[in-house]
Amino acid sequence: MAEIYTDFLEKTREIHRLGATLALMSWDQETYLPPRGVPARSTQRATLASIVHERTVAAGLGALIEELQADTLDDTAAANLREMKRIRDRAIKIPRELVAELAAAGSLAQQAWLTAKAHNDWVQFEPHLTRLVALKRRVADAVGYEDEPYDALLDEYEPGARLRELLPLFTELRSRLVQLCTRIAAASDKPQRAVLCQPLTPLRQEALARRLLQDIGFDFSAGRLDLSEHPFTEGMSPADVRITTRYDSEDLSVSLFAVLHEGGHALYEMGLPIADEATPAAQAVSLGIHESQSRLWECCVGRSRPFMEYLARLLHELAPEQFSAAEPQQLYRAANAVVPTPVRINADEVTYNLHIILRLEIERALLSNDIEVADIPALWREKSEQNLGMRPQSDTEGALQDIHWAFGCFGYFPTYTLGNLYAAQFFAAARGALPDLDRQLASGEFGPLRQWLRRQVHEKGSLLPAAELCREVTGAALGIEPYLAYLDTKFTEIYRL
Amino acid sequence: MAEIYTDFLEKTREIHRLGATLALMSWDQETYLPPRGVPARSTQRATLASIVHERTVAAGLGALIEELQADTLDDTAAANLREMKRIRDRAIKIPRELVAELAAAGSLAQQAWLTAKAHNDWVQFEPHLTRLVALKRRVADAVGYEDEPYDALLDEYEPGARLRELLPLFTELRSRLVQLCTRIAAASDKPQRAVLCQPLTPLRQEALARRLLQDIGFDFSAGRLDLSEHPFTEGMSPADVRITTRYDSEDLSVSLFAVLHEGGHALYEMGLPIADEATPAAQAVSLGIHESQSRLWECCVGRSRPFMEYLARLLHELAPEQFSAAEPQQLYRAANAVVPTPVRINADEVTYNLHIILRLEIERALLSNDIEVADIPALWREKSEQNLGMRPQSDTEGALQDIHWAFGCFGYFPTYTLGNLYAAQFFAAARGALPDLDRQLASGEFGPLRQWLRRQVHEKGSLLPAAELCREVTGAALGIEPYLAYLDTKFTEIYRL
Repeated sequence: MAEIYTDFLEKTREIHRLGATLALMSWDQETYLPPRGVPARSTQRATLASIVHERTVAAGLGALIEELQADTLDDTAAANLREMKRIRDRAIKIPRELVAELAAAGSLAQQAWLTAKAHNDWVQFEPHLTRLVALKRRVADAVGYEDEPYDALLDEYEPGARLRELLPLFTELRSRLVQLCTRIAAASDKPQRAVLCQPLTPLRQEALARRLLQDIGFDFSAGRLDLSEHPFTEGMSPADVRITTRYDSEDLSVSLFAVLHEGGHALYEMGLPIADEATPAAQAVSLGIHESQSRLWECCVGRSRPFMEYLARLLHELAPEQFSAAEPQQLYRAANAVVPTPVRINADEVTYNLHIILRLEIERALLSNDIEVADIPALWREKSEQNLGMRPQSDTEGALQDIHWAFGCFGYFPTYTLGNLYAAQFFAAARGALPDLDRQLASGEFGPLRQWLRRQVHEKGSLLPAAELCREVTGAALGIEPYLAYLDTKFTEIYRL
Repeated sequence: MAEIYTDFLEKTREIHRLGATLALMSWDQETYLPPRGVPARSTQRATLASIVHERTVAAGLGALIEELQADTLDDTAAANLREMKRIRDRAIKIPRELVAELAAAGSLAQQAWLTAKAHNDWVQFEPHLTRLVALKRRVADAVGYEDEPYDALLDEYEPGARLRELLPLFTELRSRLVQLCTRIAAASDKPQRAVLCQPLTPLRQEALARRLLQDIGFDFSAGRLDLSEHPFTEGMSPADVRITTRYDSEDLSVSLFAVLHEGGHALYEMGLPIADEATPAAQAVSLGIHESQSRLWECCVGRSRPFMEYLARLLHELAPEQFSAAEPQQLYRAANAVVPTPVRINADEVTYNLHIILRLEIERALLSNDIEVADIPALWREKSEQNLGMRPQSDTEGALQDIHWAFGCFGYFPTYTLGNLYAAQFFAAARGALPDLDRQLASGEFGPLRQWLRRQVHEKGSLLPAAELCREVTGAALGIEPYLAYLDTKFTEIYRL
């Protein structure tokens, strides 16, 4: 049996290494690829992706999985088998023609989306989205589901997540967040963002970003920081993790929180078990858990009161002309101003999840044939009004704002909210385990928190499914109360509610 | 038959696209890969390389080649068939175990070479080189040859080249170059390099490099310039060609000529037929021809008298503090100082090929069992004395100076000299076709020369084998007289011989 497992592991490693190569190609495309190189790159990526598919569905791998299933395996082997089987089963169920149709339709949709967004012209995008939704319904039917098609798509990003469990959480979350927003809107003492919006060159911001990353434990001998239009993280191995940011010369918070966010993703990737590198069990377990790590560092740490003591010192040291007068409390209030905006990526912690819930509801209705693509812009405006108390001025700021759907990503958005919920629950557990946490954050000692996360989450890779991991780390199933308690305490104090 | 050809082309394109991905991985490894990422990257590269091998030797491709050989094909199809067959035949002949042994031995040899070179300790490197030579002899036996084993290795880099044709050229070349060196050594009026050796920051040198590249026609929307320890060029497609350079703050000539050299390689890659991108016929035909393009721009253009008129203006504009007094004639003499050195990469145009001939003779003797690896250091010193009139002070500056052998590259060095010979012959032809060439170079109009090279060489890709390409472009077989005439005219004038 040991030999069968060795063979199985070699095949999964090959698939994973080709996947890491695809990740490198993505990273390069967003950072350094010359513009005219895009078409050839697309064919190079498609070629490699098709080999990954070929290897994943290969009968030889299937036979090994079959044999191993009859065997008693240790935890790691069992996780490797579970994960590879899950990925393979899904790949087998979706016909290759459908994958190719999706890739082609997505490529056209992305171009159409760019123009449509630039010209506030929903009608240009509509037929492409209609086609993508139809294809994604076919994917859902091919993959199969118990309750409704949306679950089959959600499962790609958050294995094991089901609407019947998520919807009650999200519904309650929405109503409680809307209440909090209403209280905040009525508050008289509103924080100002001005202290963060001072002219600071990208070069100075980069120096600050590198210092921040170093301090939270980002290992520059195993990672990089580069520039891109939209910040992202790619991990080719735990020893090659690359993040990007962008700089706004008039608003430090853009790069500050992007770097903490991507830095959180990177710490997860760097903390995955390197000895088992390139095996399924040594990968991040879900997008929701991944997002919990980025949001924990960005929000629970980076927007916390103790962190501002550290940040103020850093700013005094690295940008004295602009920030010598900046006080921790002032920075804290500026970093936590609640300003409803139609645009998700500009949203504060309180309103962010209302944007996500809006998308989830629309996606779900689309997949279940309850609405047509043509209904989206009006529905978007209506739901914005309900959730955020405001309507987008245009579709550019409304239904066209995010690129996700143009990539065929339906079921992806909820992982953002799951990330926030997991983050709050993990952070509460960390606080329990590290009684000195606030003092540590204030003095820039991020090691204890990072090490706790590494032991509790990172090193476990995919050994446990996300839901079980949450129970093991926090002693409870995923819920909304830790997150709501976190927000309530924080914003009650800031807004003197 | 058309369908068979389409199938064949699709398979060759797949192989080529995976090859382009390997090229991206190489580029990344030399530029941006974090140091700790190297081990995982090695396994990722090995995984992809092994798939390239698998696809190349696949029986399905063999059957298509077999069928197409019976058919009448147009020139492009015939070249595609010829090139793919050549690559495939070689891949089939070399057993996979031997490829794996070579990769493993090369990996160890490269590490040993680094230490051995750093500590001037030949003995550390010797067993690794012995092993590599033994493996390369097995490669030569597996590939087969008519005259001697070396031909089988040379053919990998310069398809069709044979020692029986090269040796008479190289032997005569050495004797004529040694004569020229002797005359130069006796000259009383020796150029000084000082004008090029003024402090200039890497940032200023980079601005200069970018302007130079733009002026010679390097398309920055289809290419990049980055930093690396050793300058190189990688072409992922004609629309994604990346070069690197390094900067010496005390010697502008390092980056100046590196950028012209790699820029010449890049113009070739950018000029390959993009419509047939990713097919065998649309690739560079040989390393010798590739090197002709780099040396033509570096030496025939970049170290020419007319070019110095343009360069002086550029320096006056971009680095006035250092270069406002620099005269074209002074730059010309400085850029062409003949200073024998034990180190190949520091060599001037006159002595450069003497370094290559030394390596060729040693490699050939090794492969034919005429000498042992242990004989190399002494032989190197002796041949240095004969060729260059000097002995290296150490093995670090002698037999350990180049990394090529540690990579298992035997038969590679001669392509450098072939490049010089082809360059001179092409440049003479260009001069015949462009009567106004000197004035154009002096005024920085590089378009006519670049367009001539594109039509004559670049666009032809691998349609013709290198030797035939040379005859078609220059009306004559490759010879040494154009090169010797070029050197003789130039250095007779500079040194007033």
